[in-house]
Amino acid sequence: MNGTTPIWISRFDPDDIAAREAAAPDGPLRGQLVAVKDNIDVAGLPTTAACPALADRVATRSATAVSRLEAAGAVPVGKTNMDQFATGLVGTRSPYGACSSVFSDAHISGGSSSGSAVAVAAGLVPLALGTDTAGSGRVPAAFNGIVGLKPTRGLVPAAGLLPACRSLDCVTTFTRTVAAARTALAVLAGPDPADPWSRPAPPRPPAHIAARPRLIGVPAGPLDLDPEHAVAWKAALEHAARLGRLVPVPVDEFLAAAALLYGGPWLAERWAGFGALLDAAGPHADPAVRAVVTPGRDVTGAAVFAGLDRLAALRQATEPVWLDIDALLLPTTPGHPRLADVAADPLGVNTRLGTYTNFVNLLDLCVVAVPGGSRPDGLPFGVQLIGPAFADRPLLDLAARWTGEAAGGPSAPPDADAPAGTVLLAVAG
Amino acid sequence: MNGTTPIWISRFDPDDIAAREAAAPDGPLRGQLVAVKDNIDVAGLPTTAACPALADRVATRSATAVSRLEAAGAVPVGKTNMDQFATGLVGTRSPYGACSSVFSDAHISGGSSSGSAVAVAAGLVPLALGTDTAGSGRVPAAFNGIVGLKPTRGLVPAAGLLPACRSLDCVTTFTRTVAAARTALAVLAGPDPADPWSRPAPPRPPAHIAARPRLIGVPAGPLDLDPEHAVAWKAALEHAARLGRLVPVPVDEFLAAAALLYGGPWLAERWAGFGALLDAAGPHADPAVRAVVTPGRDVTGAAVFAGLDRLAALRQATEPVWLDIDALLLPTTPGHPRLADVAADPLGVNTRLGTYTNFVNLLDLCVVAVPGGSRPDGLPFGVQLIGPAFADRPLLDLAARWTGEAAGGPSAPPDADAPAGTVLLAVAG
Repeated sequence: MNGTTPIWISRFDPDDIAAREAAAPDGPLRGQLVAVKDNIDVAGLPTTAACPALADRVATRSATAVSRLEAAGAVPVGKTNMDQFATGLVGTRSPYGACSSVFSDAHISGGSSSGSAVAVAAGLVPLALGTDTAGSGRVPAAFNGIVGLKPTRGLVPAAGLLPACRSLDCVTTFTRTVAAARTALAVLAGPDPADPWSRPAPPRPPAHIAARPRLIGVPAGPLDLDPEHAVAWKAALEHAARLGRLVPVPVDEFLAAAALLYGGPWLAERWAGFGALLDAAGPHADPAVRAVVTPGRDVTGAAVFAGLDRLAALRQATEPVWLDIDALLLPTTPGHPRLADVAADPLGVNTRLGTYTNFVNLLDLCVVAVPGGSRPDGLPFGVQLIGPAFADRPLLDLAARWTGEAAGGPSAPPDADAPAGTVLLAVAG
Repeated sequence: MNGTTPIWISRFDPDDIAAREAAAPDGPLRGQLVAVKDNIDVAGLPTTAACPALADRVATRSATAVSRLEAAGAVPVGKTNMDQFATGLVGTRSPYGACSSVFSDAHISGGSSSGSAVAVAAGLVPLALGTDTAGSGRVPAAFNGIVGLKPTRGLVPAAGLLPACRSLDCVTTFTRTVAAARTALAVLAGPDPADPWSRPAPPRPPAHIAARPRLIGVPAGPLDLDPEHAVAWKAALEHAARLGRLVPVPVDEFLAAAALLYGGPWLAERWAGFGALLDAAGPHADPAVRAVVTPGRDVTGAAVFAGLDRLAALRQATEPVWLDIDALLLPTTPGHPRLADVAADPLGVNTRLGTYTNFVNLLDLCVVAVPGGSRPDGLPFGVQLIGPAFADRPLLDLAARWTGEAAGGPSAPPDADAPAGTVLLAVAG
């Protein structure tokens, strides 16, 4: 990282932060500095969603998620850069500047929660809040080598969030360890009368998901992966085989749901959520965001119901998979584009990035995105551990075993640079 | 009933029925004749949904619900009249003729499952299938003095149904006893790969609903009821007090959901379901149905998502009520219109009829509509016993106690003609 990546959109005064740290209540997050994505309200700072036209909209009260962190002792320090209106997976769709990965100035940070992920990966804060509708809390985790938790929809309240797709939006966390994600989730989770989509967790995770996940679903067929990604994925599969039994499962119907999100119906929800703001933003609107979202104005209600029907069919078709596995392992992205790749094809590159993330929220799943080792070129590789709604805790258990935290050791993701023999020996052991 | 009410749209040949009876498999419904609403496929008969333009659409296979009844020994005899495209609660919106109540030639049968309800009430069959999106399986039960069961959404598959609102449509039963409804539900329930909205029942009913419901919620405020209905409702409350403890609960937010169904968003789902058929029906389209549904064509996708958001808020606001009660008691309708009332104001009379039924499917509730005694003028009065999703069995238990079946005795609904002293004595006892 060259130190000039535009992580922040606004920040509290350092003296103010120091005073808040001193006054922080004694809780599980006592004194922890927190970065907050700029589509989540923090009292005293504007909520721009990376649209400068909104820069005078200073929040008078904090989002429920932020208030819960503060009540646990955490201290918000500022608001982070993002793909405008949380519409993008690249981290470049911002008038405040494009973010790059902490691993390479030439490669994108991923988005839409770009600044939050980079702030954690760069060591500026131990915890950041993001949001995730199509992968925005996972893609930048993958591209910066950290942990991104997208909890079950409704588990963490979204009150105080400038919506992308209100029925799908999730508040997410970025951390450097799974343990930190677990602590944050315990603080953040719980229903909220201010968010109609929030819901209480049932007393137990789904009955058919093992508390200690052992059956790891992997795609039965080939995946669309860049060559460097493909090498890292192979190593990740070998790492997974050390943690449980790999069960090949069909994933076509999971991936098919992606078409709904940007192919029509759910664009209308984006339009409902922020179309008026986008319309009024004039020159401040990011051209790619405007191009993607404006067709949402013309989606008919009948098309939305046809989409809900199609989604119900995909949900029904995919549900039986969870009877055979405890978690589904997928790469987070098919590749890691350069800033130049995005500039050359802003829409195409973004669409492909969501191949393995878009379906998750639509199908009411939860997911922990974890580091999955390094590619031969040294860039980080990320994987997703996916489960059905309310399997958050078993997934975090598996994620901790994945990173090596469960054994008390340091993070031990697979390394594609290691000689093949080493990996194979570890598998045999 | 004057014998001329147009119950049937099509019927099998009597010889054919006799042959099927003789060949019926030995099951819990062995030899029972069944009437089927004409929006549900029965192989060999057309599915018109009361639109003569569809009279040549002969079904080549039966709906899942019909096949399950046949596998249990039942014998379909024909297809019944209905409000066209299941859009109406009156029973008069049909080119095949308006149905009247078995209790009065001058009063409507209710709808949209008019012919099915009348066939059972008149004793022609012991069991009929209807459908219910807004009350179509309950209003005609109330107006004909029989039992109408609207199970939890998705419990009985809707494959083979010409949809009204696909995400809300339920296949329902009409019977003269609660016991018959229970037997039919046991045969009909269970998921179906052909219906994306079908879902399995959890192993147990909701944990907070007593298996033997005792806490009966009643509206805390006044209701909109015609004078004759109000007298019967008072007697019904006294009857309810004999079966459990009455708990006043707020119902405004339940009733508010009704506005969504016909006020905009969900009209788009009707348009998605049968708009093309309605458009092509020309002179065969019922004018009221056309007037109600055509605006669904112009509902925007954004408006639908705003509606889903509003519905989520109403669901969240109403859910806590189920922690305090085991069932909610409401009248099925605010009054019992004459055929002449509907002719004078086809839309207004219909809208008011759905006051207490429209919200149920939207809020994912189940309900048993049972006879609630007689009005002073001798017309039947009907009430609904409503519960959360998958409380079907506890509700049927309460319904059986309501009708007196549980005690082994004959049906003993309250009678508004009885001297007040008698009723009060019974309450005291």
